[in-house]
Amino acid sequence: GPCSVESREQAFKTAEHLHKLGVRFLRAGAFKPRTSPYSFQGLGADGLKILRETADHFGMKVVTETRDATQVDRVIETADIIQVGAKAMYDHGILHAVGRCGKPVLMKRHFGATLQEFVQGAEFVLSGGNSQVILCERGIRSFETKTRFTLDLCGVAFIKHHLNLPVFVDPSHAMGYAYGVPDLTRAAMAMGVDGLLIEVHPTPKLALSDASQQLTYDEFSSLYSSLKPIAAAVGRTLK
Amino acid sequence: GPCSVESREQAFKTAEHLHKLGVRFLRAGAFKPRTSPYSFQGLGADGLKILRETADHFGMKVVTETRDATQVDRVIETADIIQVGAKAMYDHGILHAVGRCGKPVLMKRHFGATLQEFVQGAEFVLSGGNSQVILCERGIRSFETKTRFTLDLCGVAFIKHHLNLPVFVDPSHAMGYAYGVPDLTRAAMAMGVDGLLIEVHPTPKLALSDASQQLTYDEFSSLYSSLKPIAAAVGRTLK
Amino acid sequence: GPCSVESREQAFKTAEHLHKLGVRFLRAGAFKPRTSPYSFQGLGADGLKILRETADHFGMKVVTETRDATQVDRVIETADIIQVGAKAMYDHGILHAVGRCGKPVLMKRHFGATLQEFVQGAEFVLSGGNSQVILCERGIRSFETKTRFTLDLCGVAFIKHHLNLPVFVDPSHAMGYAYGVPDLTRAAMAMGVDGLLIEVHPTPKLALSDASQQLTYDEFSSLYSSLKPIAAAVGRTLK
Amino acid sequence: GPCSVESREQAFKTAEHLHKLGVRFLRAGAFKPRTSPYSFQGLGADGLKILRETADHFGMKVVTETRDATQVDRVIETADIIQVGAKAMYDHGILHAVGRCGKPVLMKRHFGATLQEFVQGAEFVLSGGNSQVILCERGIRSFETKTRFTLDLCGVAFIKHHLNLPVFVDPSHAMGYAYGVPDLTRAAMAMGVDGLLIEVHPTPKLALSDASQQLTYDEFSSLYSSLKPIAAAVGRTLK
Repeated sequence: GPCSVESREQAFKTAEHLHKLGVRFLRAGAFKPRTSPYSFQGLGADGLKILRETADHFGMKVVTETRDATQVDRVIETADIIQVGAKAMYDHGILHAVGRCGKPVLMKRHFGATLQEFVQGAEFVLSGGNSQVILCERGIRSFETKTRFTLDLCGVAFIKHHLNLPVFVDPSHAMGYAYGVPDLTRAAMAMGVDGLLIEVHPTPKLALSDASQQLTYDEFSSLYSSLKPIAAAVGRTLK
Repeated sequence: GPCSVESREQAFKTAEHLHKLGVRFLRAGAFKPRTSPYSFQGLGADGLKILRETADHFGMKVVTETRDATQVDRVIETADIIQVGAKAMYDHGILHAVGRCGKPVLMKRHFGATLQEFVQGAEFVLSGGNSQVILCERGIRSFETKTRFTLDLCGVAFIKHHLNLPVFVDPSHAMGYAYGVPDLTRAAMAMGVDGLLIEVHPTPKLALSDASQQLTYDEFSSLYSSLKPIAAAVGRTLK
Repeated sequence: GPCSVESREQAFKTAEHLHKLGVRFLRAGAFKPRTSPYSFQGLGADGLKILRETADHFGMKVVTETRDATQVDRVIETADIIQVGAKAMYDHGILHAVGRCGKPVLMKRHFGATLQEFVQGAEFVLSGGNSQVILCERGIRSFETKTRFTLDLCGVAFIKHHLNLPVFVDPSHAMGYAYGVPDLTRAAMAMGVDGLLIEVHPTPKLALSDASQQLTYDEFSSLYSSLKPIAAAVGRTLK
Repeated sequence: GPCSVESREQAFKTAEHLHKLGVRFLRAGAFKPRTSPYSFQGLGADGLKILRETADHFGMKVVTETRDATQVDRVIETADIIQVGAKAMYDHGILHAVGRCGKPVLMKRHFGATLQEFVQGAEFVLSGGNSQVILCERGIRSFETKTRFTLDLCGVAFIKHHLNLPVFVDPSHAMGYAYGVPDLTRAAMAMGVDGLLIEVHPTPKLALSDASQQLTYDEFSSLYSSLKPIAAAVGRTLK
């Protein structure tokens, strides 16, 4: 899905396109934890409602995140999968709430978090009684700045080897530039990961957040079809 | 002060010792944002009460942090300076609340945060209407693991040069080992910083959090007296 | 190939195994630039001779590195592809010599080098008149230490997009542990890279350098056959 | 001293100024290991000669570096202290040569080197029979890019605590901007380090290398006098 819900029309058109391809999950942010107070902060409760209605229309599932502990209950109520964003990985109010929520939790690795801290974050949720935790690698901060972050696929190999939780990869935030997203998506697919988060937008240049990393519908369709033989090669199927 | 409030006695003895030396601020955590769910999580509301009573007894000010947005109001009510801990630097619920609280805010840099993100975090508080923001460097995460973090004094030089906000340094969390704390404290003092956070504990080995980095009373006294001539050399006075 | 040439027998057996699978290049170190003076430093000139004879016997090409500028001429004379190891990426004596050598140069990225510095290193060779430069990503140093280095596939996407030089990937050194090498190799293959460096050893536990990351013959055979469908999916063939 | 020897006049004027203040060592590069082939590479053998004659005129000692193993013998012959530059820390040809040279070796930490690798580099020299090794911290590469590098004073505390070798600090290369150099120099002085490398240039804006980080003569004089009370406070004297 796109980075943020910007309007009913943008959400609807994107969902329609993804649904036609066979994508079953609609991911977008309503409460955006932006670093600067002067950036677009998301549509909030309205965005959540748009997301729910759009997904229902197409029979898709909603994946969305909470910005902080003050909206976590509202997000839990509305979404099918609760995303704990990278910046929220250390937020105990959120971890505590999603640990008792009974819905799957998609937990993104903070860009400054070691694998050990990432796993400890998951343990907060697990120890709250919720066993449906999905780990998502989305790039860590290294000294390299030509790309937005550094996708840590060594870390994915570590998680696959040492833990029994499903692993997702988000190449869009890691790379930060659409040109590299298809190659990195195929790389993650070839590792046999359990899911992929890829940002798509009807007109990336007009996106209100993370414009440079979102794929057009056409780029996404073409990427999606290139994934099938790779998935088959590693014994997985795209659903 | 110590890392955490562990008991009334520990808080009282430490405050008494610091007060005799002339230290005016008592800093300790009641709500501890620990990385692992199996670590000591702080005394919570009881810890806050102990801290307040102890500080009042000695005429000291309380500096303490909130773990997440769910306790921020209680902390704001009790403390004199609200600490936004490193892991809370991206927590919008907290930033929003302290931006309207009318009390000084001590904002620690997240160990994965660039200087730009650190300043943007401060802007959230400032744009909420609270101009009393203190920035605190406490070590960033680099590839070096022989020390707990890497104290970024280049970053302190950057902040001093480009911003008008007061700057504190926390050498204890950066180093992670008591042996290096005195040297790093003297280094920060020689840069003319506006404040220092140093962890002290009656019996460091028995500390319930961050045991290896806390100074004994004697080590602290000796460090404290070594700071005076350095402060004088850079035109500052210890208060 | 293995990390180091340790004996004629080890080189011969490994080459025989690789040759049967269809691998055409034999890579191993004779002059090893080890970090500690107490580690195995390689067989030197004898290792070079073993490597040449073994490769000739199987009609393979020799890829090997020079430790520093003092042996560069000998290595240039013997090898078919001159490897500039990660630690040698800044060595001007080596860069100058290989820039005039007329043979292909396989240049590994230093683990502390930005992409810009990596490209500038290649420019030293190119500006010496040698246009046959191959760039090889082998992991950069991040704060994560559960894996040996962090394989920077975002960097590979950057290089593929911005430069016209062939790109190789070395997952063995990046991961540091054999368990993750097959997944990372498949990931790199799915990005359509031009070559892969994978360490193989008859008995990894007995290897004199980098023991933990070398694959057994069986692990390598199994990995090699899993690469074919992925290569096909991205329009490449294994040779 | 300045970063590079650029002309006889520049070297002479700078040495004259430093000598008047009481500085006893003249440090400058003749062979510069630049990252790009299109940058100024130093005056080479002529620079070495200028440096020697200038130092002799004022009774100063020469500290200079070798770019790679091919000029190391010439540098050893001419200099009083042989600098192993950051990029040369892994160059075995150089480490081997200076290990047998009988002169003090000033070894700079590579910006991507862990403390363990830094110490292992020193062990190469020590194990060659040369016990006069000085370690110099000059900034490591972190994710922070507002400053050129991140000066690792935690690492300096580690070295002081665990090793018996003298430690120098180079704040100029770490910071990369003249504005932060005085504060960082005072910080290092307050840690009681054994020496400081500070870049000075008659007209920094015209410097052929690292222009932004060099102090003017006046800035240096003023810094130098501010160091005396700090040195006194930590029981050291400036010489």
